[in-house]
Amino acid sequence: MTTATRLAALRQLMAERAYDACVIPRADEHLGEYIPRHNERLLWATGFSGSAGMAVVLREGAGIFVDGRYTVQVRQQVSADDFSYHHLIDEPPLQWLRSSLQPGARVAVDPRLHNLQWLRQAADELAAAGMELCTDTDNLVDRSWQDRPVAEIAPALLLDESFTGESSASKRKRIGAAVKALEADAALVFAPDSVSWLLNLRGQDIPCLPVLQSLALLWADGALDLLVEPARMPAGWQQHCGEGVRMHAPDEAEALLGAQAGKRVLADPVTANAWSQLLLEQGGATLVPGTDPVILPKACKNAVEVAGARAAHVRDGAAVVRFLAWLDGEQAAGRLYNEAELADRLLEFRAGGEHFQGPSFETISAAGGNAAMCHYSHRNGTPAALSPDSVYLVDSGGQYSDGTTDITRTVAIGKPGADVRRMFTLVLKGHIALDRARFPKGTTGTHLDVLARQHLWREGHDYDHGTGHGVGAFLSVHEGPQRIAKAWAPVPLQPGMIVSNEPGYYRDGAFGIRCENLVVVTEVPGQLETPMYGFEALTLAPFDRRLLDLALLDAGEVRWLDAYHEQVASTVGPLLSEADRGWLQEACAPLAAGC
Amino acid sequence: MTTATRLAALRQLMAERAYDACVIPRADEHLGEYIPRHNERLLWATGFSGSAGMAVVLREGAGIFVDGRYTVQVRQQVSADDFSYHHLIDEPPLQWLRSSLQPGARVAVDPRLHNLQWLRQAADELAAAGMELCTDTDNLVDRSWQDRPVAEIAPALLLDESFTGESSASKRKRIGAAVKALEADAALVFAPDSVSWLLNLRGQDIPCLPVLQSLALLWADGALDLLVEPARMPAGWQQHCGEGVRMHAPDEAEALLGAQAGKRVLADPVTANAWSQLLLEQGGATLVPGTDPVILPKACKNAVEVAGARAAHVRDGAAVVRFLAWLDGEQAAGRLYNEAELADRLLEFRAGGEHFQGPSFETISAAGGNAAMCHYSHRNGTPAALSPDSVYLVDSGGQYSDGTTDITRTVAIGKPGADVRRMFTLVLKGHIALDRARFPKGTTGTHLDVLARQHLWREGHDYDHGTGHGVGAFLSVHEGPQRIAKAWAPVPLQPGMIVSNEPGYYRDGAFGIRCENLVVVTEVPGQLETPMYGFEALTLAPFDRRLLDLALLDAGEVRWLDAYHEQVASTVGPLLSEADRGWLQEACAPLAAGC
Repeated sequence: MTTATRLAALRQLMAERAYDACVIPRADEHLGEYIPRHNERLLWATGFSGSAGMAVVLREGAGIFVDGRYTVQVRQQVSADDFSYHHLIDEPPLQWLRSSLQPGARVAVDPRLHNLQWLRQAADELAAAGMELCTDTDNLVDRSWQDRPVAEIAPALLLDESFTGESSASKRKRIGAAVKALEADAALVFAPDSVSWLLNLRGQDIPCLPVLQSLALLWADGALDLLVEPARMPAGWQQHCGEGVRMHAPDEAEALLGAQAGKRVLADPVTANAWSQLLLEQGGATLVPGTDPVILPKACKNAVEVAGARAAHVRDGAAVVRFLAWLDGEQAAGRLYNEAELADRLLEFRAGGEHFQGPSFETISAAGGNAAMCHYSHRNGTPAALSPDSVYLVDSGGQYSDGTTDITRTVAIGKPGADVRRMFTLVLKGHIALDRARFPKGTTGTHLDVLARQHLWREGHDYDHGTGHGVGAFLSVHEGPQRIAKAWAPVPLQPGMIVSNEPGYYRDGAFGIRCENLVVVTEVPGQLETPMYGFEALTLAPFDRRLLDLALLDAGEVRWLDAYHEQVASTVGPLLSEADRGWLQEACAPLAAGC
Repeated sequence: MTTATRLAALRQLMAERAYDACVIPRADEHLGEYIPRHNERLLWATGFSGSAGMAVVLREGAGIFVDGRYTVQVRQQVSADDFSYHHLIDEPPLQWLRSSLQPGARVAVDPRLHNLQWLRQAADELAAAGMELCTDTDNLVDRSWQDRPVAEIAPALLLDESFTGESSASKRKRIGAAVKALEADAALVFAPDSVSWLLNLRGQDIPCLPVLQSLALLWADGALDLLVEPARMPAGWQQHCGEGVRMHAPDEAEALLGAQAGKRVLADPVTANAWSQLLLEQGGATLVPGTDPVILPKACKNAVEVAGARAAHVRDGAAVVRFLAWLDGEQAAGRLYNEAELADRLLEFRAGGEHFQGPSFETISAAGGNAAMCHYSHRNGTPAALSPDSVYLVDSGGQYSDGTTDITRTVAIGKPGADVRRMFTLVLKGHIALDRARFPKGTTGTHLDVLARQHLWREGHDYDHGTGHGVGAFLSVHEGPQRIAKAWAPVPLQPGMIVSNEPGYYRDGAFGIRCENLVVVTEVPGQLETPMYGFEALTLAPFDRRLLDLALLDAGEVRWLDAYHEQVASTVGPLLSEADRGWLQEACAPLAAGC
């Protein structure tokens, strides 16, 4: 079926329903980062496979809207015969719609695929131009899509309290009380990772992202109405989740959400889809706009979750060390593998670890100049082979029942030049400065971001990505509200939050460097004027000493690196074979002893 | 006249006009930091002299609302017989009004004394409770105030282009074009310092703040309608300001602002008062909400303004150095003066300087534990005398025709203890780190704030104020949009912006330390991957080497301090007497040579 045929089918349906335009975002009803194959509607309609974008199909003509990352890719994947190209930010779809259509035009939008804020603004903007936004949940793409894949449905895992540290009943009770304090009767818990954390369940049907695809209403008394495909709920879930959890199949959504007349329901107009909130409102409930009340408690890991993260990182560190030792042996033997082989090999080392559930994201395995592309994937073309006297960047992570990992190491292949070593050292100095930071209660990631960049800035360099993202507890490898970035992050860092520390440097076509550990926020002990927090590294694997320009490190930085390496050797060493342990000891030898 | 008598007079008027409540903010019609005596309405009505607050007078009973800084002071100055005390943030006046009055109540508000955003929200909140907000510019306090001081009116200065670097016509033309680009016909230029900068005029009737009390409409073609007391305009202003400036007396305000039917007028609902915007709107103009378009161009000083600032700082540095040398001589002779005598002496040293126009703010002259209060004023009680083996903090500045200065130095009196020296050194390390920062285009002050705090944070300390504020060019010593603080500052730092660098440390009842220079943002020369900016110090006076704990300084910090002191000695030295120059050379001797 060609794109033209697909568009013809869509236009046929549009004509039947008297629509003049149809909006197709890259989103499914959970509005998350991950879209399962059967919900890749934008890909089906256009051929565009990027992670963000939107198409608008008119009766005649159509436009596709992507951001700066995808202006090249969209031209490779989408024919100008079918779609005109537009910049998502500079020439937004609504503006284009208003200039392309006449007053009286009807625009079809699936309210499950947009947040409420967007939908309301779109309705206002179209109304101002005399046009009508028509919400339609009988999705036009789904109706036209003949060979649509079937949704994967696997039963969720019951995650034991030895991993979660708190029962679902306890979580629901305390967050219910917080909902009540906001003068609401219930909260719409929309994000699948929020629901999963609240119920101590983990999904098994999405690669890398162990969430239960579902949404819920959490009541002030801790009771919860769960909207979920029943086949996703494993035997024994009632006992596991505790009293007060009522399951509803997806086709009961309208009956449930539409029957809350008189209730005040906390809902986030930016992260929750419009459909769920419109159902509540149309049924007579009052929406109380506010943040998902699960996000902050979920981000502040309890003692059991932090201990689990530490344990998972020891096993993960052992896998990474085995991989690095193997890689060194292979390169010494003159065998230079390609990026795909290396990624596969690393996965094999992880796969044997206790509690391993799968990777936490698709490994970035990048040789030479490929590493200069921050979001490089060796799957998009022919994987490159390692080349002598260069660096190899590998960014990977694992999902374990007791924690989620995410680590980047940059590895010397042969003898990289002085310039590469200089840049590696500047990046590592930033990593160390951030790791060593102490900061008072109330400090956010935006305040600390400069610590990781200052040494690059001094030399006129920078990197064009955030310094750190939040990480879940056997949940999404990207979670909020914590992050370390130039953009303003209003929520302060708090004990138990896990965040990545990953400064980098990228030179187009030449090389890429990133030094990434996960760290956990802890309270600094002692009698201080102000409560002070700091970071403790969770990730345990050596940084490549062969890439250091020792002249650029000060005494404190050398002490930090030696202490970190000593910790790696003493915690990970015991899990290794004698040969690997020998490699690790050499990799972790004190710098003071020379390098 | 007692407060009770004043309240009776107010209530008499309220009864005549059928008001149930009257709102009295601490503000005048310019909504600025400075309030002239004849506009101190809150002080008149309540006796409270703090810099922020609000009173609400009911037919029976009244409330006063202050923030955390003033909870003690308000109880000292205001009798509980007349007013109940409330926290301005935790128990806001509108909430209290709604709970104190019945539906149908009428609340009098002078729209000249509130911004539009506040007024609209207040009207909405009262309306929701069935009450009415009544705008009344025939101010109830003014009508009741029998011995009200007369406003001071002095003619403005014509500031020569040799100081401003750009004619008023040129400024009005380029900012007019920016107004046009925002699809507006005109901008309401509300802030007196914006008008003063735009017209190259400076007021002479407010202490410390050389602004022309006025407001203006700037048209897209550069023409300008100026609302100002005619007696404030000096002879020759027309020629000085150039073509297209039309003067209107204050009583023509309604005629002018009310006659713009069909025009689109850019106005800032947060910084401009409600009255001016309501007049525009009632006259048929359309308000375009947006920032005052003068603020950013004014903040980015041109080459002439920066050169002027440098020149003013050499003269100001000479005055400060003479004062510090004199102080050392006096303390060596065993003469320890009090805070008032010291402040007066410093002003005398400044007063002789070329282009000196007066202080830029009221000097903070604080001995010993008084310096732990960030906003201490020796005028609020008996000035304390210096005490042996302590530190003296002096924060002062001058207005010169070519620039505004603001400097804080902390001075050893006798031999302060090791703890004081340790804290001074940590503060100075932060000052140095911020001064040395390099940062890419797009960086804001919020990103850099941590550099000044990091060394204090490491030891568990912090200071409870911003690190830096913007400074005008012979204008307000506090100007935006630039600042360096924890709170999010969205506008990036740009070349030509002047900002203070003033970390501190305060120990209650014991001592206070602050190290403050003004610095200007400059572009780092050379071929760099990214345009990089840095700071160059404008302020020229030695930091007290006797307060250093040399063991805490690293080699780079020592180099910075030696280089800075060398610059101070070589630029300021030539202006001094031989004796003072000898003192300066000793104060600026390299640390490398011992201390």
